[in-house]
Amino acid sequence: MKIEVKKNIMATNASAAAKNRERLLEHGICMVNLMASPGAGKTSTIIKAIEGTGGLLNLAVIEGDIASEIDSLTIEAMDIPAIQINTGGSCHLTAAMIGAALDHLDLEALDLIIIENVGNLVCPAEFDLGENARMMIASVAEGHDKPYKYPLIFREVDAILINKIDLLPYCDFDLAQFRQLVQSLNPGVSLIELSCKDGYGADELCDWLRETASRNRADLRS
Amino acid sequence: MKIEVKKNIMATNASAAAKNRERLLEHGICMVNLMASPGAGKTSTIIKAIEGTGGLLNLAVIEGDIASEIDSLTIEAMDIPAIQINTGGSCHLTAAMIGAALDHLDLEALDLIIIENVGNLVCPAEFDLGENARMMIASVAEGHDKPYKYPLIFREVDAILINKIDLLPYCDFDLAQFRQLVQSLNPGVSLIELSCKDGYGADELCDWLRETASRNRADLRS
Repeated sequence: MKIEVKKNIMATNASAAAKNRERLLEHGICMVNLMASPGAGKTSTIIKAIEGTGGLLNLAVIEGDIASEIDSLTIEAMDIPAIQINTGGSCHLTAAMIGAALDHLDLEALDLIIIENVGNLVCPAEFDLGENARMMIASVAEGHDKPYKYPLIFREVDAILINKIDLLPYCDFDLAQFRQLVQSLNPGVSLIELSCKDGYGADELCDWLRETASRNRADLRS
Repeated sequence: MKIEVKKNIMATNASAAAKNRERLLEHGICMVNLMASPGAGKTSTIIKAIEGTGGLLNLAVIEGDIASEIDSLTIEAMDIPAIQINTGGSCHLTAAMIGAALDHLDLEALDLIIIENVGNLVCPAEFDLGENARMMIASVAEGHDKPYKYPLIFREVDAILINKIDLLPYCDFDLAQFRQLVQSLNPGVSLIELSCKDGYGADELCDWLRETASRNRADLRS
C-alpha cells in the first residue's frame, strides 16, 4: 500500500483555499499573498503599503512566522488589524491557517488583506491560500540568479518587487539580466523597483495594490 | 488510525544519517553542512574556503538546489569535485540524498566535504545529514532580527558567518544586538564576520574549517 501523503495534504489544502476564496468573495475583499526569502523586506513593504493606501483602502494584515510576534506588533502599532500566525516548525502557511485567521477579522470592514508568508522561496509557492493575487520580493542583495534556482515561485506570482534597489551600487546585481530571466519564466509579471529604505517605488507598489483590489471588485460584480 | 508521517520520515532520515557518519569515520573525512537563506552567499563562501584551504585540505563539495546546476559548475571550474543534487520541489536535503552523493565521490582522497544545503532557514535545520559540523550564514542585508524568527537554526549550528559585512554602512543592521541575540540562543557558537566580496574574514573562516577538520581527525584517533 502506498500512502499518498503529499496528494492528501494538497487536496485538503485546496478545499480549505476554496472556502477562503468564497468568504472573501462574499465580502468583496481582495487578499494578496506576499512571499520572499528571510530578510528581503516583507514587513517593511507592508508598512509602505499601509502608509500609501491608508484612507483609500481598509486594510488588514496576516503575519506568518515560525516564531515571535514582532511583525504583528509593528503593524498593530500603525492601527491596522494584524493577526499573527506562528507555524511552530512549518516552513509555509496553509489555507487552513488563513481560514482560522479570517475568523478573527471583521470582514465587513475590509477591502484588502495582505498575508506575509513565512520567509522561504520554496514551499509557500506550492500552497494556495485562497488569495486573489501573489506578490514576491527579490532583494538586490540576494543576487540576480535566484530565478534559476527557485523557478516555481518566480513563475507563479503576479508581481515581483525588486527591493533594496538602493543597494544596487554596492552589490553584483545585474538588473537587466534579472529582468530578462524573470520575463522568460513569467512573461506577464509586473516588475516594480522598490526601496523601502528611501521610499523609491512605493507609489508604484500602492498603485498596483489599488488596481488589483479594484479589478478584483470589478470581477466580483461581473 | 493515526499515521505518524513526520515521525517515520525523521526515523528513516536518522538511520541514513548514521550510515553517512559511519562512512565518513572509516575514511577520516570531516563533513560540514552549510545552511543559509537564498542569496546569503553560500557558494561565494565555499569559493573562499577552497581558495584558502587549497593544498592544505583535499576538499569536495555537494551542492543542493531545487533546480539548476550553476553552482556545481562554478565549483568544478576550480578543479574541485562537485556533486549537484536537484531536490525537485523539496526545500531541504536529506541524509539519503547525501548518501547517494557520497557514492559518487572518491572518499579515499578527501579530508573535507562541504555541503551547500537548499537556501532556506527552516527545514534544513531539522534534517541531520550525518555531518560533523554545522555552519550558517546570516547576511547583513537580511537584518539583525532573524534569530527571533528562525531560532532553531541559530541554536543548532557550530559557527555563524556574518556575511556581506561590507554592506554594514548601507543597512540597518545592529551588529551588537545581533551578537547578543545569537549568544543568548547559542552561547558557545563561533561568530565570524565575513565579506566574500573583499575577502575580509576569509582567513578566519579557513582557520575554523581547518581546526574543525583536525579536531574531527583527533576525535577519530582517540
